[in-house]
Amino acid sequence: MTKKISPLAPKIFPELPSVRGVTLGTARSGTKYKGRRDIFTAVFDKGTAVAGAFTQSEIKAEPVEFCKRNIIDGSARVLVVNAGYANAFTGKKGKRINKSISSHIKKFIKCREKDIFICSTGVIGENIPLRATNKAISKSLKNNDPKWKNAARSIMTTDTFPKAVGRKIIIDDKEVSIVGIAKGSGMISPNMATMLAFIFTDAFIDKTVLQTLLNIELRNSFNAITVDSDTSTNDTVLVFATGKAMNNKSDKIISRTGDPRLIKFREAFSHIMHDLAIQIVKDGEGAKKLIQIKVSGAENTSSAKKIARSIADSPLVKTAVGASDPNWGRIIMAIGKTREKIDPKKINLKIGNNIILKNGEISRSYSEKKTKNYMKGKEILLDINLGLGEGFSQIWTCDLTEGYIKINADYRS
Amino acid sequence: MTKKISPLAPKIFPELPSVRGVTLGTARSGTKYKGRRDIFTAVFDKGTAVAGAFTQSEIKAEPVEFCKRNIIDGSARVLVVNAGYANAFTGKKGKRINKSISSHIKKFIKCREKDIFICSTGVIGENIPLRATNKAISKSLKNNDPKWKNAARSIMTTDTFPKAVGRKIIIDDKEVSIVGIAKGSGMISPNMATMLAFIFTDAFIDKTVLQTLLNIELRNSFNAITVDSDTSTNDTVLVFATGKAMNNKSDKIISRTGDPRLIKFREAFSHIMHDLAIQIVKDGEGAKKLIQIKVSGAENTSSAKKIARSIADSPLVKTAVGASDPNWGRIIMAIGKTREKIDPKKINLKIGNNIILKNGEISRSYSEKKTKNYMKGKEILLDINLGLGEGFSQIWTCDLTEGYIKINADYRS
Repeated sequence: MTKKISPLAPKIFPELPSVRGVTLGTARSGTKYKGRRDIFTAVFDKGTAVAGAFTQSEIKAEPVEFCKRNIIDGSARVLVVNAGYANAFTGKKGKRINKSISSHIKKFIKCREKDIFICSTGVIGENIPLRATNKAISKSLKNNDPKWKNAARSIMTTDTFPKAVGRKIIIDDKEVSIVGIAKGSGMISPNMATMLAFIFTDAFIDKTVLQTLLNIELRNSFNAITVDSDTSTNDTVLVFATGKAMNNKSDKIISRTGDPRLIKFREAFSHIMHDLAIQIVKDGEGAKKLIQIKVSGAENTSSAKKIARSIADSPLVKTAVGASDPNWGRIIMAIGKTREKIDPKKINLKIGNNIILKNGEISRSYSEKKTKNYMKGKEILLDINLGLGEGFSQIWTCDLTEGYIKINADYRS
Repeated sequence: MTKKISPLAPKIFPELPSVRGVTLGTARSGTKYKGRRDIFTAVFDKGTAVAGAFTQSEIKAEPVEFCKRNIIDGSARVLVVNAGYANAFTGKKGKRINKSISSHIKKFIKCREKDIFICSTGVIGENIPLRATNKAISKSLKNNDPKWKNAARSIMTTDTFPKAVGRKIIIDDKEVSIVGIAKGSGMISPNMATMLAFIFTDAFIDKTVLQTLLNIELRNSFNAITVDSDTSTNDTVLVFATGKAMNNKSDKIISRTGDPRLIKFREAFSHIMHDLAIQIVKDGEGAKKLIQIKVSGAENTSSAKKIARSIADSPLVKTAVGASDPNWGRIIMAIGKTREKIDPKKINLKIGNNIILKNGEISRSYSEKKTKNYMKGKEILLDINLGLGEGFSQIWTCDLTEGYIKINADYRS
């Protein structure tokens, strides 16, 4: 299968700062993805805090179980990621594989098992080829490779472009970096978590505050996207804070969410979470358009969320947008099928700035031609106001094209 | 758009009995579908009982509102169906159109408005061209056209073949006929109802028993299918019983569900409901395979149902089946994402007769090659036993192919 790069991919890979206290490495295992890096490692200086969010699927992959156990302690020394094998539904063997990988890592990095985080994505039910993987991990741990682009590339599976974003901020007169990388393209409908995303910072923040920030920011980022309504067994977001930018003896750790120094950090962190999530949608399998769905005026937030998700997951809405067809009846259908409270006579609908419905009736100014023209663009806004209450929610998705079918019919072959 | 007939279509249109007390008619309105019949009428002898089930969408089309009002009385004289315009989300104008159609009908057939049933499918939000439609209705009422095939064809929209099934049974030494016709291909995820299906019988059954039978049989027919998880605004099933086969003065009406004469009728009725529902799936947009999903051993029925539906609606499962790829990890993913109670170590999975998982582990006898071969067929069974309880549910769907995208990107153009 030749992979075409998503037309929504950013033109260039961003310039990213280095994060003090993090040593990156990559290597090739020569297993599923021959001829490219498929192992990524990050080694953290002592004292690094970690926070995480994981798939809510009832069937969790072995690496998710492994990370969930280790995150309780809240400190991290090593992250290792392999691409191609999900290590999901692999039973005892899957557990043994993670045990073996962590023992192997401990030969090189002195740490406890609970300081190690293993993440995997790829085909469910296949076993990670242990020997080749461990060999590549030792190479990666020795191979200091500070390029974020290599890191972001090495974790890709059906992704067509590497996903990363970074920011520099000043806290207490010190330059603090935050960098995030992510992968994900199909099986994307995260539920309290996502595919793989890793965020690295040298800010000096304790694990509790880090976890609180992560939980809050999930809502408007990884929990607000869907490609195909399918939730992965492997979804994981991990945030690592080394503290190296601000933990001289004189510096105090940020240990309360009320700390004023957190405001700037949170702003940058929020941007990075949201940006990574949107990049995943932009690389949605077969995607040609990014669709933003805003639902306001719903009875309450939960109702707004259900309606937004129903529109975002409707294959009929997604194919219509893919064809630049202002077939607004399908949006109405997707609202109705949720069985949430609505009043047809109060519905307002805009596509971009084109007013389609005003109080449930077709607007006099509506021009199908103009709307179609707008829909030929790459970023489409569907803006619904239900006119009932204060409930608001937004979600990002992509169009459904023949590319999705091609990619997923071919994925294993 | 040239329409390819679904590869799952029956080779021939079935031989169907006539139903006493029903006069069929068809005509061309020359509006959306030029050069073919798009109006269907059925006139019933006096004393015909009717039962119905309708979409549960919060946004109901005008014809659904119209039929729901009229069904309370339980008697029917005229059914009229138009193809191409859904008359959904058309506001006051949509209501006026139905008023005008029923007034027009009353000029030809002496009856009350509540004896008239109007059904529409097609594009949401567009108005039915009233003049051309009324003209065609009068033609159809005069044009006695006893061919079921013409009736079944005239109600089609994106359908690629006409759907019908019939049975003859003997009740009280009298030959009783039941014939059903249906349409539907996309926006199929009925919730207590379906797209359009009409069942006609000359059995002598009262409206209450008819409605009870319909409610019971929905479960294993129209409520057990999904093409694309999108629920229509127009879903309607109507059953008409003229009584003409058995209502001589000496015959007694079937007015209790305990009536022993109902047993044979119910068997035939059940067959007809199920068969029509499966025909709709076989004509699922772009469908190349019929997929039956059986979930047993769930904690309870509701859990089995949710899991079956999650598998049936997963685009990743559907594309894998379309590619004859035994990518069973996607079935596991779809089970997990429901968050229903499961125990991975107890899951059993078969594809056809091929045992994949036994108590959560890959079966020693599993042959990917054999399974792939089986999956090249047109009818695929996914058989899951969760090993927990007595919960059972089954659902029918079709694969997701590039055809679905093509049809739905082109539908309005």
